Amino acid sequence: MSRKIIRVGDTASFSKTLTETDVYNFAGICGDFNPVHVDKETAAYSKFGKQVCHGMLVASFISTVLGMYLPGPGTIYLTQTLRWDAPVYIGDTITATVTVEKKELNIVTLETIVRNQKKKQVVIGTATVMVSSEDRTE
Amino acid sequence: MSRKIIRVGDTASFSKTLTETDVYNFAGICGDFNPVHVDKETAAYSKFGKQVCHGMLVASFISTVLGMYLPGPGTIYLTQTLRWDAPVYIGDTITATVTVEKKELNIVTLETIVRNQKKKQVVIGTATVMVSSEDRTE
Amino acid sequence: MSRKIIRVGDTASFSKTLTETDVYNFAGICGDFNPVHVDKETAAYSKFGKQVCHGMLVASFISTVLGMYLPGPGTIYLTQTLRWDAPVYIGDTITATVTVEKKELNIVTLETIVRNQKKKQVVIGTATVMVSSEDRTE
Amino acid sequence: MSRKIIRVGDTASFSKTLTETDVYNFAGICGDFNPVHVDKETAAYSKFGKQVCHGMLVASFISTVLGMYLPGPGTIYLTQTLRWDAPVYIGDTITATVTVEKKELNIVTLETIVRNQKKKQVVIGTATVMVSSEDRTE
Repeated sequence: MSRKIIRVGDTASFSKTLTETDVYNFAGICGDFNPVHVDKETAAYSKFGKQVCHGMLVASFISTVLGMYLPGPGTIYLTQTLRWDAPVYIGDTITATVTVEKKELNIVTLETIVRNQKKKQVVIGTATVMVSSEDRTE
Repeated sequence: MSRKIIRVGDTASFSKTLTETDVYNFAGICGDFNPVHVDKETAAYSKFGKQVCHGMLVASFISTVLGMYLPGPGTIYLTQTLRWDAPVYIGDTITATVTVEKKELNIVTLETIVRNQKKKQVVIGTATVMVSSEDRTE
Repeated sequence: MSRKIIRVGDTASFSKTLTETDVYNFAGICGDFNPVHVDKETAAYSKFGKQVCHGMLVASFISTVLGMYLPGPGTIYLTQTLRWDAPVYIGDTITATVTVEKKELNIVTLETIVRNQKKKQVVIGTATVMVSSEDRTE
Repeated sequence: MSRKIIRVGDTASFSKTLTETDVYNFAGICGDFNPVHVDKETAAYSKFGKQVCHGMLVASFISTVLGMYLPGPGTIYLTQTLRWDAPVYIGDTITATVTVEKKELNIVTLETIVRNQKKKQVVIGTATVMVSSEDRTE
């Protein structure tokens, strides 16, 4: 947990190919067995035409970037807004990117975007997090 | 997937005791190995004094209620706001509750709250979802 | 956990596409690593020609419908008979359906059937469960 | 997969301590989040006084013995009857034991019992399985 100075414009990302295993294990934790996620027959007749990943699963990678990279370990999540713009299918590779927009004392506001392998924006929102006082030295 | 009429004031809930297994499996999916979640030594010296569950793990149960119960299967997630008000520790039992606030055509707005076993509010926010046209018959 | 009146003829279902993840996670819990389930080379030369899902994995969805939907939370499992009529392959989508056949005091007897995506019956049996006294009010 | 001669009276067993991880992962596969299994607050007020393992999870170890040891790999499950006699709690160590009762051509009938660490019978039933013709040579 190295100390670092957080500046407006700083950015960090995390990528993963979302697989059937991810969708099934995520459903297994939170209990969301909505057929659009775990029933390929029903999903084939849905608006999306095939199984889609849980929106919250996709969004969870924002938390990963915040907690692991920017601001990093010790970060406390305060708020998050999320708007899902496009579906993520099993097999898609997503990249969650956070960018510092504002910093006031130990509160940092970040733009949070998740894109798929075609660079299409699938989730957008804003996070506010609290960093420990050591992180905000400049 | 029976058709149901959604009315302002309708409410549904889902409860689970969050365990070490949940926290570890969730970290294993999204890669958020922030020490406050998976390092009990570091967590002991953090603001919370012990390991806390991922904020997004706690929030994921909102998605479960929306996708499984109200509006239920077929629901499409549009937006979600989240504010984390208190930590959820390993072993806490959380209940996610959604309540219909507004319905316009096939767009439903719901208040979404997660409480712990002491009825303390740990997450609050608002969701908007799209339901299939059959769901909005009145 | 709303109280509901259980009537002869009531029915409920639950569906899921069974994947490699399910078969592997199930084997990992119960330790049934029979090659027809987890060894595709051996399975190719078996009676079924490819990997099949564990019979008990398929049957477990009966328990899900009983415990989650009908009679629902609070149900206590007393007995179950099972006859496997056809194999379930990885990638098949199964639907477990229970139908109330008899109700005597707080003991409910249900026909339990699991079908695949072609509506072929793969498991049939009978369950008896105990419901809390509130559930049997009529 | 060594060939062996199956005789009336043959017996085999398999033991495991059932943990929270087992119960949570099993719920995650089959979707049975009945609060008696995954909600310790609700379970505390249930008939059993604390969280119990899924009945089908306990029964799944019968399948393990049949598929792994007696008759062993290649076994095809035909029927199973189950009667749950007592709850299995998280932390209990169960032993599934199968004993050959009858053999006719390639159909074997076995008594199937699961006991807990106090030797209390928690599940009893009968299985019929089909073995490959090589297994029944005497």
